[in-house]
Amino acid sequence: LDRDAPEEVRRAVREGTKREILDESFPYDCMMPREDYDAAMERLQLQLVRMMHGVAAQGRRVVVLFEGRDAAGKGGTIGRIQQNLNPRNAYVVALPKPTEREAGQWYFQRYVDWLPAAGEMALFDRSWYNRGVVEEVFGFATTAQRRTFFRQLPDFEQMLVDDGVILVKLWLNVGRAEQLRRFLARERDPLKQWKLSPVDVEGLGKWDDYSAAIAETLSLSHLPVAPWTVIRSDDKRRARIAAIQTLLHAVPFDGRDLTAIGTPDPVITGGPEMLRI
Amino acid sequence: LDRDAPEEVRRAVREGTKREILDESFPYDCMMPREDYDAAMERLQLQLVRMMHGVAAQGRRVVVLFEGRDAAGKGGTIGRIQQNLNPRNAYVVALPKPTEREAGQWYFQRYVDWLPAAGEMALFDRSWYNRGVVEEVFGFATTAQRRTFFRQLPDFEQMLVDDGVILVKLWLNVGRAEQLRRFLARERDPLKQWKLSPVDVEGLGKWDDYSAAIAETLSLSHLPVAPWTVIRSDDKRRARIAAIQTLLHAVPFDGRDLTAIGTPDPVITGGPEMLRI
Amino acid sequence: LDRDAPEEVRRAVREGTKREILDESFPYDCMMPREDYDAAMERLQLQLVRMMHGVAAQGRRVVVLFEGRDAAGKGGTIGRIQQNLNPRNAYVVALPKPTEREAGQWYFQRYVDWLPAAGEMALFDRSWYNRGVVEEVFGFATTAQRRTFFRQLPDFEQMLVDDGVILVKLWLNVGRAEQLRRFLARERDPLKQWKLSPVDVEGLGKWDDYSAAIAETLSLSHLPVAPWTVIRSDDKRRARIAAIQTLLHAVPFDGRDLTAIGTPDPVITGGPEMLRI
Amino acid sequence: LDRDAPEEVRRAVREGTKREILDESFPYDCMMPREDYDAAMERLQLQLVRMMHGVAAQGRRVVVLFEGRDAAGKGGTIGRIQQNLNPRNAYVVALPKPTEREAGQWYFQRYVDWLPAAGEMALFDRSWYNRGVVEEVFGFATTAQRRTFFRQLPDFEQMLVDDGVILVKLWLNVGRAEQLRRFLARERDPLKQWKLSPVDVEGLGKWDDYSAAIAETLSLSHLPVAPWTVIRSDDKRRARIAAIQTLLHAVPFDGRDLTAIGTPDPVITGGPEMLRI
Ligand SMILES: Nc1ncnc2c1ncn2[C@@H]1O[C@H](COP(=O)(O)OP(=O)(O)O)[C@@H](O)[C@H]1O
Ligand SMILES: Nc1ncnc2c1ncn2[C@@H]1O[C@H](COP(=O)(O)OP(=O)(O)O)[C@@H](O)[C@H]1O
Ligand SMILES: Nc1ncnc2c1ncn2[C@@H]1O[C@H](COP(=O)(O)OP(=O)(O)O)[C@@H](O)[C@H]1O
Ligand SMILES: Nc1ncnc2c1ncn2[C@@H]1O[C@H](COP(=O)(O)O)[C@@H](O)[C@H]1O
Repeated sequence: LDRDAPEEVRRAVREGTKREILDESFPYDCMMPREDYDAAMERLQLQLVRMMHGVAAQGRRVVVLFEGRDAAGKGGTIGRIQQNLNPRNAYVVALPKPTEREAGQWYFQRYVDWLPAAGEMALFDRSWYNRGVVEEVFGFATTAQRRTFFRQLPDFEQMLVDDGVILVKLWLNVGRAEQLRRFLARERDPLKQWKLSPVDVEGLGKWDDYSAAIAETLSLSHLPVAPWTVIRSDDKRRARIAAIQTLLHAVPFDGRDLTAIGTPDPVITGGPEMLRI
Repeated sequence: LDRDAPEEVRRAVREGTKREILDESFPYDCMMPREDYDAAMERLQLQLVRMMHGVAAQGRRVVVLFEGRDAAGKGGTIGRIQQNLNPRNAYVVALPKPTEREAGQWYFQRYVDWLPAAGEMALFDRSWYNRGVVEEVFGFATTAQRRTFFRQLPDFEQMLVDDGVILVKLWLNVGRAEQLRRFLARERDPLKQWKLSPVDVEGLGKWDDYSAAIAETLSLSHLPVAPWTVIRSDDKRRARIAAIQTLLHAVPFDGRDLTAIGTPDPVITGGPEMLRI
Repeated sequence: LDRDAPEEVRRAVREGTKREILDESFPYDCMMPREDYDAAMERLQLQLVRMMHGVAAQGRRVVVLFEGRDAAGKGGTIGRIQQNLNPRNAYVVALPKPTEREAGQWYFQRYVDWLPAAGEMALFDRSWYNRGVVEEVFGFATTAQRRTFFRQLPDFEQMLVDDGVILVKLWLNVGRAEQLRRFLARERDPLKQWKLSPVDVEGLGKWDDYSAAIAETLSLSHLPVAPWTVIRSDDKRRARIAAIQTLLHAVPFDGRDLTAIGTPDPVITGGPEMLRI
Repeated sequence: LDRDAPEEVRRAVREGTKREILDESFPYDCMMPREDYDAAMERLQLQLVRMMHGVAAQGRRVVVLFEGRDAAGKGGTIGRIQQNLNPRNAYVVALPKPTEREAGQWYFQRYVDWLPAAGEMALFDRSWYNRGVVEEVFGFATTAQRRTFFRQLPDFEQMLVDDGVILVKLWLNVGRAEQLRRFLARERDPLKQWKLSPVDVEGLGKWDDYSAAIAETLSLSHLPVAPWTVIRSDDKRRARIAAIQTLLHAVPFDGRDLTAIGTPDPVITGGPEMLRI
C-alpha cells in the first residue's frame, strides 16, 4: 500500500504513535483526549436530537454533503450524527455507481430523487461532487461532462437553497501520512478491509491528481449561497465535533443552545484555505 | 356551461358553423381543408419517425412541454406526435396532482424523475407550469411558492438545455368562443365528457384570472435559452401542424427534409405576442 | 425479410389481396367491413369512457397485459383503448430492456413498480411474459431463471387478483403469412420501419422457436384466477373489437350496457386452444 | 407513562436494578457481562464483514426483517449489524407511513421497491408486518385488508425465497416490565425522547391488544420456507448476539467460521413458542 508514498510520509507513519498527529502542519500534536471528546459529543448529541425534532415539527428540509478523500472520516462522522436520530426521517444516501441508463440522464437526476421531503434530513455519503473528484481522477467522466457539471453546479445548489433547503457542505481534509496510516490500519483490521475498494487502493498512488481535482473543485464550488466548510480531519475526534457543530449552527431550531454547541474550532475549520494538500 | 361567458362569445358559438373559426381576430375564416391537412400530416409523420430514429441513434434527449388552457388541443397534438413512434422511447408524462409527500419536496423534483435518458423523448401533457397558471387560478399554491417557482425557473430550464436536453415549449392558445364551443361539444359528446373535470368547469368562469396568470407566466418564462412557441389553436389542424413543425425544427437529425417539413405558419405561430387573451 | 419463410407462406403473401385474410384456417375470408367496424368501435369507445369513469369513481385497479408475436396488433389495440381516455389515469407501460441493476433484482420487481393505484388502469405493452417468450427464444434468460419464473407466476398473479386488481391477459395470435405481410408492409412503409427492431427481424427466422415458447408459456400460465384470452388477430379489426369487449366484460361499472358491448366473437376468441401456430 | 401498567409490572420496574432482568420468566437474572459481550461481538463483526464480502462477490440478495414491539431493540441491533458494513450495499429501510396514493396500491408494492439487487442486503426496520400488528392495534387497516394480507403473505415470501432471496425474519420479544423500563428511560433521556412517538405512548395502554395481534401474526406467518426466529430481548446484549448469529447462520459465505459464530442461545432463541406475552 505504501509503495507510492514519498519517504517522509512513510517515515511519519512508521514513527508516529497512536495518539500523535502525523502531519507537522496540523495545529495539535495529539488527538483530543477521550474524556473531552465524550463530554462534548454528549452535549452535541442532545442538540442534534432537538434539532431533528425541530426539523420535523417545522417541516424543514436539510441536506448535508460529506466529501473528502477516502479515509477522511466521512462514514464515522455520519454514524455519530445518525446515532440518536430516527432513521425514518434522518437517512443516509450512499449511491452505487450509476447504471448505464442513469449515465445517459441529467447528471443531477439520480441525486434529486433522494432530496428530502418536508421534515427530513438527507446525509449524503459522497454526492454529486463525485464528478469533480473521483470521476476526474479515474477518467469516469469526459472533460466536457466535467465542464458542464461545474457550469450547472452553482445554479443547482442555488435553487435548492432558494427553495428553502438547508444545504450544508462538509469537506473533510486528511493529510497524506494520516490517510496512509488509516489505510494501513484498514488493511490490518479485518473489520475494515471492505473499506479498501480497488478505487481506493489505486487512488493512493494518485495523491497529486486528487489534490489537483480537489483544489479545482473547491475553488469552483465554494459559493456564497452554498459555501464549503473544510475541516481538517487528521484528528478524527476534533473533526467530528467540528462537523456536528457546523450542522447545528446551520439549522435554526427551538431550544438551540449555542453555548452548549460551541464554535467549530477555528484552527481546523474554515473555508477552502484550510486545505493542506 | 356557458352561463359565465359574455353575450358576444355565446352568440359567436351559437352562430358559428362547424368549420368556421369563431374568433374574429383569427387570421383564417375556416379550418384547413382535410385533404391539405392529411397530406401535410403524412409528410410530418414521416419526418417524426426519422427524427426519433436519430434521437435514439445519437442518444439525444428531447423534452416537449404542452401547455395551454383546457381544450386548447394539447392531448390531440400529443396523440398525433406519438402515433407512429415507439412507446418504449417516446413517452407521455401526465402526472396526477401531487401527493402530500411530494407537496413537501422541491417543486421540480417529481418532474425531474421523468426526464428522458439518452435516446428518449418525453412529451409532458402539462408540466411544471401548473404552478404558474392552474395553481394560481385555483389557489393551490401560495404566493411565496409561486414567487420561488418563477425565480428558479430560468436556472432550472437553463440547466437542462445546458446539459444537452432539447427543450421545446409549446403554448397552445385558444380563443374564448372556441374554448366554449369545445366544452359544449365535450358536454354533448359522451366520449369526451371525462375531459370536463371539475377544475375545467369551474375554470370556465375564471377566464380573466387565467388570462392574467398566463400573461404573467409567459412574460416570466420566455427565456432566451428556452423560449416559448405560442401557437394559436382555434384551428386545431393548423395548430397541430405548426406544433410538429416546431418540434422538427428544434431537433437536428439525419435525413431531415426542411422542405418537406415547411415553416410553421407565421400568422398563427410566434412568441408571447401571439397571445390573444 | 421473407427468406426464412416456407414457400406456401410466401405464396400466400404474394397472392393475397389487401382485405383478404391469408390464413386458410381463419374463420373469415375477408376483413370486417369498415362501416361495421366503425359502428362497433364507436359503441365500444363510449363504454370504455364509462368504464374508466367507474374505475376512477370506485377506486378500482385494472391491469391489462398485451402479449403476442411482433406485428400481432398490440400497439394498435392499445391505441384504440387509450384514444378517449385520460392519460392521467389510463396509462401505457412499455418498459425498455432491463438495466444491469434490474437484471439482478427479483424479476417482477420492475413491473410491480408500475402497478396501478386506486382509480387507475395500466396497459402493459408486453409484460413479465417476456421471460416466457422473447427471452427464451433469444437466450436472454437462463433455463433456471425461466423455471423460476413459471414457478412464481401463478402466485404472483393470484396475489394481484386476490388484492382486488382486475387482471386481463390478452394474447393476440397472428398467423405466419399475415405476420410476414405486416413485416413486409412495415419495411415498405417509412412510417413503420422503426417497428422492425433487430429482435423482430432476427425473430422472423425463429417462427418455430417462438411457437414452442408460446405454447409452453400459455399452458403454464392459463390459470383459473388469471386465464388468457387468446384472440386470433389476422383480421385486426375483429381482433381489436374482441379485445375491447373482453376488457369491458371483465370490469364491472355503472352504466355498462352488455347489449351495446356484445360478446367477443367466439370463432376468433377463446382460450389457449385458439392458438394456431 | 406507567399509569396503564399493572401494579406488579410497575413494582418490578421500581425495584429492578440496572443490570437485573425484570422478567421473572427470563432464563437469566442479569445482563450478559460487558466483557463477554464485547468479545463475542467482535468475533461476530468480523464474520459480518466477511459475509457481506461474500454477498457482494456472489451476487446474493439478503433481506432481514426486524419486528417487535416498540423498545424491543430493533434499532440497536440494526446499528450493530451495519456498524462495519458499507452503506452502499448494506442499507436500512425504514419507511414512513404510506401516502394516500400508496394506500391505494397493492400493499406490498412500496416494500418491493426496496428489495435488494444482486450483492445487496436490505435491513428492514419494521416491514410489511405493520399490517399484522400496529395497523391492527390502531385500526389503520380494515379487517378485510388484514385478511387479504395474511392470505397473500405466504405466497409473497415464498416467491422471494424461491427467487433466491435469503429472507431472515427476526422477532424481538420484550417483556412488559422491561418495555416500560425502557420507555421510562427514554422519557428521562433527552437523547431518546424522539423514540417516544405518539403511537408508542398510546400503545403502552394497549399491551393486550398488541399481544393478541402479535400472537395471531406469528401463528399465521411462521412458514416453513420463511420461519420466524423469535428472540427474547429483555437482555439486549444477548438478544443482539443471537440476532447476528441467526443472520450469519442463514447466509452461506466463504470463510464462515461456525465455531467463532457459535449457536444462538437456545434459551432465548426459538420459534413462536418463545413468545411470552
Ligand atoms: N389540489 C391540486 N394541487 C395542485 N395541482 C392540482 C390540484 N388539483 C388539480 N391539479 C392539477 O391541475 C391540472 C388541471 O387539472 P384537470 O383539468 O383536472 O386535469 P386535465 O389536464 O387532465 O384536464 C392537472 O395537472 C392537475 O394535476
Ligand atoms: N437483452 C435483452 N434482455 C431482456 N429483454 C430484452 C433484451 N433485448 C430486448 N428485450 C426485450 O424484448 C422485447 C422485444 O424487443 P423489440 O422487438 O425490440 O421491442 P418492441 O416490442 O418494442 O418491438 C422488448 O420487451 C425488449 O425489452
Ligand atoms: N396512519 C398510519 N397508517 C399506517 N401505518 C402507520 C400510520 N401511522 C404510523 N404508522 C406506522 O406505524 C409504525 C410505528 O409507528 P411509530 O411508533 O411512530 O414509529 P417507530 O417505529 O419509528 O417508532 C411505523 O412503521 C409507521 O409507519
Ligand atoms: N465507473 C464509475 N463511474 C462513476 N463513478 C464511479 C465508478 N466507479 C466507482 N464510482 C464512484 O466512486 C466513488 C468511490 O468508489 P469506492 O471507493 O469504490 O466506494 C463511489 O461514489 C462510486 O460510486
